[in-house]
Amino acid sequence: MTHKVAILGASGYTGAELVRLIAQHPNIEIAALSAERKAGMTMAEVFPHLRHMDLPVLCKIDEIDFTGIDLCFCALPHKTSQEVIAALPKTLKIVDLSADFRLRDPAEYEKWYGNAHAALDQQKEAVYGLTEFYREEIKSARLVAGTGCNAATGQFALRPLIAAGVIDLDDIILDLKCAVSGAGRSLKENLLHAELSEGYNAYAIGGTHRHLGEFDQEFSKLAGRPVKVQFTPHLVPANRGILATVYVKGDAQAIYDTFAKAYSDEPFIELLPFGEAPSSHHVRGSNFCHIGVTQDRIEGRAIVIAALDNLTKGSSGQALQNANLMLGEDETTGLMMAPLFP
Amino acid sequence: MTHKVAILGASGYTGAELVRLIAQHPNIEIAALSAERKAGMTMAEVFPHLRHMDLPVLCKIDEIDFTGIDLCFCALPHKTSQEVIAALPKTLKIVDLSADFRLRDPAEYEKWYGNAHAALDQQKEAVYGLTEFYREEIKSARLVAGTGCNAATGQFALRPLIAAGVIDLDDIILDLKCAVSGAGRSLKENLLHAELSEGYNAYAIGGTHRHLGEFDQEFSKLAGRPVKVQFTPHLVPANRGILATVYVKGDAQAIYDTFAKAYSDEPFIELLPFGEAPSSHHVRGSNFCHIGVTQDRIEGRAIVIAALDNLTKGSSGQALQNANLMLGEDETTGLMMAPLFP
Amino acid sequence: MTHKVAILGASGYTGAELVRLIAQHPNIEIAALSAERKAGMTMAEVFPHLRHMDLPVLCKIDEIDFTGIDLCFCALPHKTSQEVIAALPKTLKIVDLSADFRLRDPAEYEKWYGNAHAALDQQKEAVYGLTEFYREEIKSARLVAGTGCNAATGQFALRPLIAAGVIDLDDIILDLKCAVSGAGRSLKENLLHAELSEGYNAYAIGGTHRHLGEFDQEFSKLAGRPVKVQFTPHLVPANRGILATVYVKGDAQAIYDTFAKAYSDEPFIELLPFGEAPSSHHVRGSNFCHIGVTQDRIEGRAIVIAALDNLTKGSSGQALQNANLMLGEDETTGLMMAPLFP
Amino acid sequence: MTHKVAILGASGYTGAELVRLIAQHPNIEIAALSAERKAGMTMAEVFPHLRHMDLPVLCKIDEIDFTGIDLCFCALPHKTSQEVIAALPKTLKIVDLSADFRLRDPAEYEKWYGNAHAALDQQKEAVYGLTEFYREEIKSARLVAGTGCNAATGQFALRPLIAAGVIDLDDIILDLKCAVSGAGRSLKENLLHAELSEGYNAYAIGGTHRHLGEFDQEFSKLAGRPVKVQFTPHLVPANRGILATVYVKGDAQAIYDTFAKAYSDEPFIELLPFGEAPSSHHVRGSNFCHIGVTQDRIEGRAIVIAALDNLTKGSSGQALQNANLMLGEDETTGLMMAPLFP
Repeated sequence: MTHKVAILGASGYTGAELVRLIAQHPNIEIAALSAERKAGMTMAEVFPHLRHMDLPVLCKIDEIDFTGIDLCFCALPHKTSQEVIAALPKTLKIVDLSADFRLRDPAEYEKWYGNAHAALDQQKEAVYGLTEFYREEIKSARLVAGTGCNAATGQFALRPLIAAGVIDLDDIILDLKCAVSGAGRSLKENLLHAELSEGYNAYAIGGTHRHLGEFDQEFSKLAGRPVKVQFTPHLVPANRGILATVYVKGDAQAIYDTFAKAYSDEPFIELLPFGEAPSSHHVRGSNFCHIGVTQDRIEGRAIVIAALDNLTKGSSGQALQNANLMLGEDETTGLMMAPLFP
Repeated sequence: MTHKVAILGASGYTGAELVRLIAQHPNIEIAALSAERKAGMTMAEVFPHLRHMDLPVLCKIDEIDFTGIDLCFCALPHKTSQEVIAALPKTLKIVDLSADFRLRDPAEYEKWYGNAHAALDQQKEAVYGLTEFYREEIKSARLVAGTGCNAATGQFALRPLIAAGVIDLDDIILDLKCAVSGAGRSLKENLLHAELSEGYNAYAIGGTHRHLGEFDQEFSKLAGRPVKVQFTPHLVPANRGILATVYVKGDAQAIYDTFAKAYSDEPFIELLPFGEAPSSHHVRGSNFCHIGVTQDRIEGRAIVIAALDNLTKGSSGQALQNANLMLGEDETTGLMMAPLFP
Repeated sequence: MTHKVAILGASGYTGAELVRLIAQHPNIEIAALSAERKAGMTMAEVFPHLRHMDLPVLCKIDEIDFTGIDLCFCALPHKTSQEVIAALPKTLKIVDLSADFRLRDPAEYEKWYGNAHAALDQQKEAVYGLTEFYREEIKSARLVAGTGCNAATGQFALRPLIAAGVIDLDDIILDLKCAVSGAGRSLKENLLHAELSEGYNAYAIGGTHRHLGEFDQEFSKLAGRPVKVQFTPHLVPANRGILATVYVKGDAQAIYDTFAKAYSDEPFIELLPFGEAPSSHHVRGSNFCHIGVTQDRIEGRAIVIAALDNLTKGSSGQALQNANLMLGEDETTGLMMAPLFP
Repeated sequence: MTHKVAILGASGYTGAELVRLIAQHPNIEIAALSAERKAGMTMAEVFPHLRHMDLPVLCKIDEIDFTGIDLCFCALPHKTSQEVIAALPKTLKIVDLSADFRLRDPAEYEKWYGNAHAALDQQKEAVYGLTEFYREEIKSARLVAGTGCNAATGQFALRPLIAAGVIDLDDIILDLKCAVSGAGRSLKENLLHAELSEGYNAYAIGGTHRHLGEFDQEFSKLAGRPVKVQFTPHLVPANRGILATVYVKGDAQAIYDTFAKAYSDEPFIELLPFGEAPSSHHVRGSNFCHIGVTQDRIEGRAIVIAALDNLTKGSSGQALQNANLMLGEDETTGLMMAPLFP
């Protein structure tokens, strides 16, 4: 059975990535693609790498007939997304890739994003979209909120450890190295090739990055008490990939064993041999997350490193994984492609 | 029906690319992987991006039992390849990715490669593997010689024009921009990141690149008279991709129409709208070749630009396309993935 | 004696490059820096790499007192530049880095740039700023028009050959590979890291690039008859550098000898041993231009390759070289720094 | 007065960087360049970017007449360096860029480098070459041991804080992002462009990197008690630059004030405004080190980020800075060039 989907916001990188992935999916058909400012253009004009595909012309959202659409991916900017979703049919299955439905507490949302939430009814029914940990809820959800790409990486590196109580909850440092596509197709000076290539720098330092809202919410819920982590993202000269180097206090072997148990049946999480470190290059273009654990020379300290592709496992791949569950498909359908290396 | 294949030389980039592609093929199973110097290692150790796959351990060639193998990919260095293939079972279907069986005239082979050919019997039965132009021969071939990646790009940009007689045969210039993976996983100073990134340069200038042997052979055969082109490859700081800028004398519209006719039914060749230029970034990781035609401001001169991924359409994707034909599969099976962008 | 200079348009790449170079000049002092939209900011805020320098705060042009300024560099966008220069003191020495005063024929200017020229009086006195060929005129000029960076590269590869009559004037092809800083610090989608890195493509194909106006003017003047070249620029994933691969018909040895004679006393032009090819990486950050000559396998055809740094020798380095002449300094002062490699 | 210097190991990146820097130095002349395996070649052949310079032909060390040499830079691999230096004239001034004389305790040297030290006499007289903190000793030293590039970066970010007692000494984490030239011009698979570009990964994890020997020695000496830090280097796809993100426990404002005081007179250390983060791109090719301090959202925790160019301030620039002191030159001579951006 073929499921018909719409992709709203198809002119951005996560939209294009959804199209790339769905192209390999045997049971999903793209019925509509929206892009407000580029309505009327073909995808080949906006993304020439998709020119071989037979795709709907880009349209405005209000031109879409949602009758017959089984699921809608929203790859819109945050704030826009909540307004659009509030106006969509109330029975339409939705996977939202924006930040709008990730935080359950409207006050937290307002604190991190600066505006009052405009779709509180929908927010209440939203399920947090980190598939490996919300699988059952996602299966029956109408609205799934895709996670932040940094937030996903950090959680893969920490959730089992927090749940198992094998690390000190008050001394967790996440040092992330992020590729530039995470910032989207936006015209900003620091995203220019001439500015970014050959250099790297931290940004949103000191605990100001919005994905901290997700860490706070999820880790505190998991621990049953407030947990605050330190999180410093860095922009590195690459297009795809997040590498999270996580410094924790705990026994490295116990940490490794916890991961081994937690992820033994996960199709997309690969635990490396003890002491090995993953590379962002080895997950590029795929839905896999590689995790490594190392004992530091200082007793009682360990380093956990997680790598994934921000556009795939961190965003559009996760979205398709969730859509598979919501549509009754096997979770891995269309997502088992190997990474592109070199 | 599942076909069993062996890949000889699996520790190189074209070997790894074959594994990546076959991972998506529904009817091919990898039965053996060889790598002489890395025999005993797993693919996960040699190529960590493939660690999620369940693959045979690397072995030596003479450890492979070819009974039950339906087809063998040889991704070995040239010269080694001919020696190995001469010793393989004489009925085994083979797709060779090296340069060893591309040139029909042993004297030409010796001229360009510097050694006498060691497998003349096999050479006689080899079919040149440019699928779009040797499709029927490939279907019934036992041994197919994969083309050079530069040679493939140049031929996609020129064969229909030479065949149709719409360009001057004595004034053809190919200026190619090639990514570094075309040089393989070899330890050479000029392939180091520190040497290559941030710079670009011509190499094998003046008509000394070995792929000229293929151009001479194929273009002369097609034209029914000797045709010699100028060919200057350049190394650019990217990992995948060949962009051929071809300067020809002829009517640009006639050239465009010739391509439109020649490639109208080709699943992997995309002719861009007249006057548009392809980008190597838009074919990366895929089996597609994008072609653009532009009229120069000087009357009677045109520019043809072709872009493909050297490891996919230029090498391992072409090899799988040929294997599909040899095994009775649909030519496009496992090869329709969209390019990875950005 | 210290010369005081102003730099108009200091918030762009060529402006910043001028500051970098002048920092090493013993006899030039920066007295004023303008940037209309960033007036009031410090250079450290706009270009943090210059934060160690003691520089004037950015101001608006009309805030500058030009009394006491010995020379003014205009690193403004074209069209703006002519308007600004028309209003500057008529005795002020000016080196303009824009395209506004390069073309002597106002009709040619209008053809390539799309607007009527707004400073025809100044245009008449402008000297074309290719130092090596207009040295004497520059020494006594009031207004020098810096060349296009592509135009400079192509002329270094061709002027001596055209002057000496050793190549066919009707069959010249320039295939240029250009780094992204040539496009300036402008916010355009194709200049984003995510779009440009890992890919490369031709642009302004078919003879539509504006630097052709300079080639036409200079080569025709030199030959005493109309000369039209083919010129195809390509954008490659690097920040600095232009590599011009020039295909000519003529005797390679005669070409080499012509260069050897023409450039024997030039401090910034390096002729490589016959048959060697330059790399853009080997001139990066410097004022040098490397030139190589190779004989093609086809009799009577040669390849000339020239490499320079578009921001230095192609723009701001050339500007300082010209300013040195106009100020009575040694031409090479402040410009002999070695390239940055790797 | 002109000082004559020899550079041993001129075919590596630090050797070439020394030549680049000395080219700008008014009072130093390169009298000899050695490279055992490339003896007889010119620098233009080994490093074409230096072809404009008039340099001695590469020779073997034993061909150098050290009479008349005022100072010798040793840019040799560790272990080789100690053997060579043991055999050099005992009165020759030496700046060693290898790791051989950095560790005062021979047992520590053997622990980190795996071999007994072969020049214990020389080791005793060696002064640790971190100029800003050993300035007086360096002035009168005969043998100065250049620091590790990572070790320099980490120390700039921590020494004043340890000395002032404003941070917790038992909880210091250094997460470094290092460019590839730090690994030298060695032929290793992971240094290939195809392997490194587009990806990034940690290496020497868990406290196994040799520069920890320097951290242990220097920080413990400074604190008057053992100090052990956590240090995880990461390889990022860039050619030059180290960015150290240092997580400390202490009051951010006190930390900032400590730096402001410690570095107020340092010509090469730039303290950024409070809360700003440096970028490796903004120090590239220069001898500057940029330092930023930020308060984390968690009370009592701060982030210190330091950026420098590993080949310049981290190695050859530091070496020249030290040589200046040893030769009685102003410390900054030849080193004030602005960074290359973009």
